[in-house]
Amino acid sequence: MEKIVDYIHVQRDRYVEELKQYLAIPSVSALPEHQADVRKCAEWSAAHMREIGLQNVKVIETPGNPIVYADWLGAPGAPTILFYGHYDVQPVDPVELWESPPFEATVREGEIYARGAADDKGQVFMHFKAVEAHMKQNGRLPVNMKFFIEGEEEVGSLHLDQFVRDNKQMLAADVVVISDSAMFARGVPSICYGLRGLVYYQIDLRGTKSDLHSGVFGGAVANPAAVLAHVLAQMKDKSGKVKIAGFYDDVRELTPEERAEWKKLPMDEKAYRKELAAPKLTGESGYTVLERVWGRPTFEVNGLLSGFTGEGPKTVIPAVSMAKVSMRLVPNQNPDKIAHLFEEYVKKVTPGTVELKLTRLHGGKPWMADFDSPYIRAAGRAIEKGFGKTPVFTREGGSIPVVATFQEELGIPSVLFGVGLPDENAHAPNEKLDLGNFHGGIIASAYLYQEIANLT
Amino acid sequence: MEKIVDYIHVQRDRYVEELKQYLAIPSVSALPEHQADVRKCAEWSAAHMREIGLQNVKVIETPGNPIVYADWLGAPGAPTILFYGHYDVQPVDPVELWESPPFEATVREGEIYARGAADDKGQVFMHFKAVEAHMKQNGRLPVNMKFFIEGEEEVGSLHLDQFVRDNKQMLAADVVVISDSAMFARGVPSICYGLRGLVYYQIDLRGTKSDLHSGVFGGAVANPAAVLAHVLAQMKDKSGKVKIAGFYDDVRELTPEERAEWKKLPMDEKAYRKELAAPKLTGESGYTVLERVWGRPTFEVNGLLSGFTGEGPKTVIPAVSMAKVSMRLVPNQNPDKIAHLFEEYVKKVTPGTVELKLTRLHGGKPWMADFDSPYIRAAGRAIEKGFGKTPVFTREGGSIPVVATFQEELGIPSVLFGVGLPDENAHAPNEKLDLGNFHGGIIASAYLYQEIANLT
Repeated sequence: MEKIVDYIHVQRDRYVEELKQYLAIPSVSALPEHQADVRKCAEWSAAHMREIGLQNVKVIETPGNPIVYADWLGAPGAPTILFYGHYDVQPVDPVELWESPPFEATVREGEIYARGAADDKGQVFMHFKAVEAHMKQNGRLPVNMKFFIEGEEEVGSLHLDQFVRDNKQMLAADVVVISDSAMFARGVPSICYGLRGLVYYQIDLRGTKSDLHSGVFGGAVANPAAVLAHVLAQMKDKSGKVKIAGFYDDVRELTPEERAEWKKLPMDEKAYRKELAAPKLTGESGYTVLERVWGRPTFEVNGLLSGFTGEGPKTVIPAVSMAKVSMRLVPNQNPDKIAHLFEEYVKKVTPGTVELKLTRLHGGKPWMADFDSPYIRAAGRAIEKGFGKTPVFTREGGSIPVVATFQEELGIPSVLFGVGLPDENAHAPNEKLDLGNFHGGIIASAYLYQEIANLT
Repeated sequence: MEKIVDYIHVQRDRYVEELKQYLAIPSVSALPEHQADVRKCAEWSAAHMREIGLQNVKVIETPGNPIVYADWLGAPGAPTILFYGHYDVQPVDPVELWESPPFEATVREGEIYARGAADDKGQVFMHFKAVEAHMKQNGRLPVNMKFFIEGEEEVGSLHLDQFVRDNKQMLAADVVVISDSAMFARGVPSICYGLRGLVYYQIDLRGTKSDLHSGVFGGAVANPAAVLAHVLAQMKDKSGKVKIAGFYDDVRELTPEERAEWKKLPMDEKAYRKELAAPKLTGESGYTVLERVWGRPTFEVNGLLSGFTGEGPKTVIPAVSMAKVSMRLVPNQNPDKIAHLFEEYVKKVTPGTVELKLTRLHGGKPWMADFDSPYIRAAGRAIEKGFGKTPVFTREGGSIPVVATFQEELGIPSVLFGVGLPDENAHAPNEKLDLGNFHGGIIASAYLYQEIANLT
C-alpha cells in the first residue's frame, strides 16, 4: 500500500485540477434546460472510468437520466464492492449568493467551492482516484469492484429501484460502499452505521362543503382546523413520547456501548441550540440530543394549511384542513406496521364531526449495520489510515432510501464512507469540499479496498 | 295611515321601475375602475332624496367615497330617526354565473335580480319610497328623520367611525334604523335584537431561525406546527366549552323566554346539516343550534399555515407556524377584557420551546337591544302591519360594527329592520330581492315612522 499512498500524494494537485473539470459540468437534474449537461456529465464519468482502467463501461439509458456502470472483476475469490454514487447535482439558486461561480470550481483556504463538490461528484471522484492509484501502481485492484453512478439522486432516484430490481445479477456484490455523507465534525472522521426510516402521511379533514361565515355558523358545526389541532395534539405526550398505541413495540433500545460512544463525541448542546436560534432544545425525556435524533423515533408535523392565511382577518370557518406529518423510525420498526398503527390511531382520535382522509406519501425502512460488522470495522481501519485518527461510530437521523433498496433487492449491507463536513452547504449556495478531506478520502478509499480484500 | 298605504299600493309598479334605475349604477366600491360610478350613485341618491321631499341634502366628501346626508326635521317634539344604509355594492365576479346582467335589474317570478337588490340599495330605496308616500299624502313625516347613506360599507366602512365622531350633532337622533339584513325565512318576518361581537387574533410561533431537515433534527427541537396544534387544542374542552379562564364570566345567559321563542322558529336541524354537507352538527353541549350561533360565544380557528403545503412529501421541521383565530362574543362580554384573558391563557399554554407573538387584528362589541325596548316593539308592530304576520324576534351570530359605533358614539340604540331573505345571494351571483317583501317593506317602513312617532 505504501507506493499507492505515495502515488496519491504525488498526484494531489493534478487530482484537484481534474476534479475542477468534473465540477464544471452543470449536471442539474431538476432543470430541463440542463438535460444536455446531465448527459454530458454521464459521458464524462464514463470516459474517466475508462481512463483509470475500469472495464465494461456503459452509459445505460433509463426512462430518465442515464446510469453509468463500470467494473473490474479481475480478483476471483476476493469480495466484490458495489460503489454507488451520483453525478447529478442540485440547482444553484439563489445564484447571487455564491461567492464564486457555482460551475467554476474555486479553491479558497483549502476548500474547493462548486456545486457538486461534496454532493456527490467530489466524493465519487475520490474513489475514481483511489482506483487509479491501485491500477497505476499494481496494475490491478485487490478486490472486485462495480461502479454504479446514477443521474437522478437529486430528483428522488425515480428509476433506481426498478433498475436495481431488473439488474440484480449485474449489480451482485458483497457490500455496497457509498460516499455521499458528512463526517461528524471537522477533524472527527466517522463511520455511520445507522439511519432512520420514514413514514409520511397527508391528513385531510373536511367539515362542510364550503367555507362558512364564522359569525353566521360559528357554534353550529365542527371547525376542521380546530379538529386537526386536536388530532395532532394527541400524537405526543408531555414527555415527548409518541402516543400511537404500539409505536415503540419494535424499537431497538440503544445499547450502553452506543450511548457511551456517543457521549464521547464533541457535541456542545449549547452551541447547537444557539446555531439553530431555538429558545430551548426539547424532545423525548431521558435521552441526549444525539440519542434522540440518531436512535429514537419521532413524530413531526411537516406542514399545516387551512382556511384564510393572507394578511389581516377573515371570519371564515374553513371547509377543510390539511396536515403533512411524518414519523422517523429506528431499527427494528417496520414502516408498514407503523403506518397501520398510525392510521388506526388517527381514526380513533378523529371525531365523527369531520370526514377524514389519510394519504400515505413516502417512506423507507430504518437501517443499521451490525456495530461489529467486518465491513464496518474494515471501513474504520481504512479511515484511520487515511486520516490518522480513529473514526467515531455514529448514526444519522435522516434516511438514505438507496441503502434500504440495496439491502432488500440485493441482500447486501452498505458502508457509509462519507468525508463531507456538516457545513459543506450541500443543497445551498457556496457548496464546498475540504481538500484535506478529499485527499485523505482518496487514501482511505484505497485502503478500504485493501481492507475489504483482507476479509477473505 | 290608510291613504299612505293606498298610495304605496297604487305606485307599486313605478317604484320597481325607479329601483331598476338605482340598481343600474355599478357602484362597486372595491374596484377603482368603478370610482366614477360610485360617485354617480351618490349623486343619484342625493337627487332622489331631494325629489321625495327631504331637505338639507348634501354629498359630503370623505377621504374615501362620499357620504350622502339628508333630513326632514319638521316634527318638533317628535322622536328623530337616523336611517343608516349604503349605496355601494359588492363586485359581481364571477359574472358568468349571473343569469341576467348584474346591472340590468330583471324581474323573474316575483324577484328582482341585480347586484345591490338586497344589499343594500333595494332596502334603502324602500325607505325612500315610504318617505315619499308620507310626504305626498300628508306633506310631512310623523317623525324627524335623518338619512345617512355611505359608500364604503362593502370595503369595511373605512371612514365611517371618524365621520360619526366628527359629526355627532348632525347625526344626533333617538334611534337608528338599519335595513341591511334578512328575515329569518321566507314568510317569517323577523326583528333582530342581538348581534355577536368579535375578537380576532393572529398567533405566530417561531421554533428556529430556519426550516430544518426533519431527519437531521427531528427529536432535537420543538416543532412549531405541533406546538401550535397543542396550543389550539387547549382552547375548548370536549363538551365544546371554551377553556380560557374567565371567558364566560360576563356572558348573559339566555332567558327562558328567548329560548322558548326560538324553539318555535321553523328550524330543521336535519335539513340545515344536509345543506352544509356536514357529517354532524356539533357545538357547546346543552344548547340548540340557534342558541349556539345566536346566543353563545365561540372560539374558531380561521386559518392555519406552517411548513410545507405543496404536493407530495417534504421532510421539513417548519421554523414558524401561524394561526388566525377568533372569538365571537355575546352580551355582556367585553372584547378588550376577552382579548386580555385570551392573551394570558395562550401565554400560559404555550411552552418556552418556541417564541410566541400575538397580534390583535379586528373586533367589535356584541350588541343587544332590550327585548322589550319600545323601539323594538314599535318595529314589531310595523312589520306586522306591513306583512300581515307577527314577526319573530331573533338574534344573529355575525357582527354589524356600525351598530356598536352608533351605540358608542351617539349613545342611541339601533333597530335592525331588514326584509331580505337568507338565500338572497348578497355577496354572490344572482343577488335578488323578493318584490313582495320590497312592497311589504315599504308599507312596514311607513308604519314604522308612525309607530315611533306614537312613542312620544
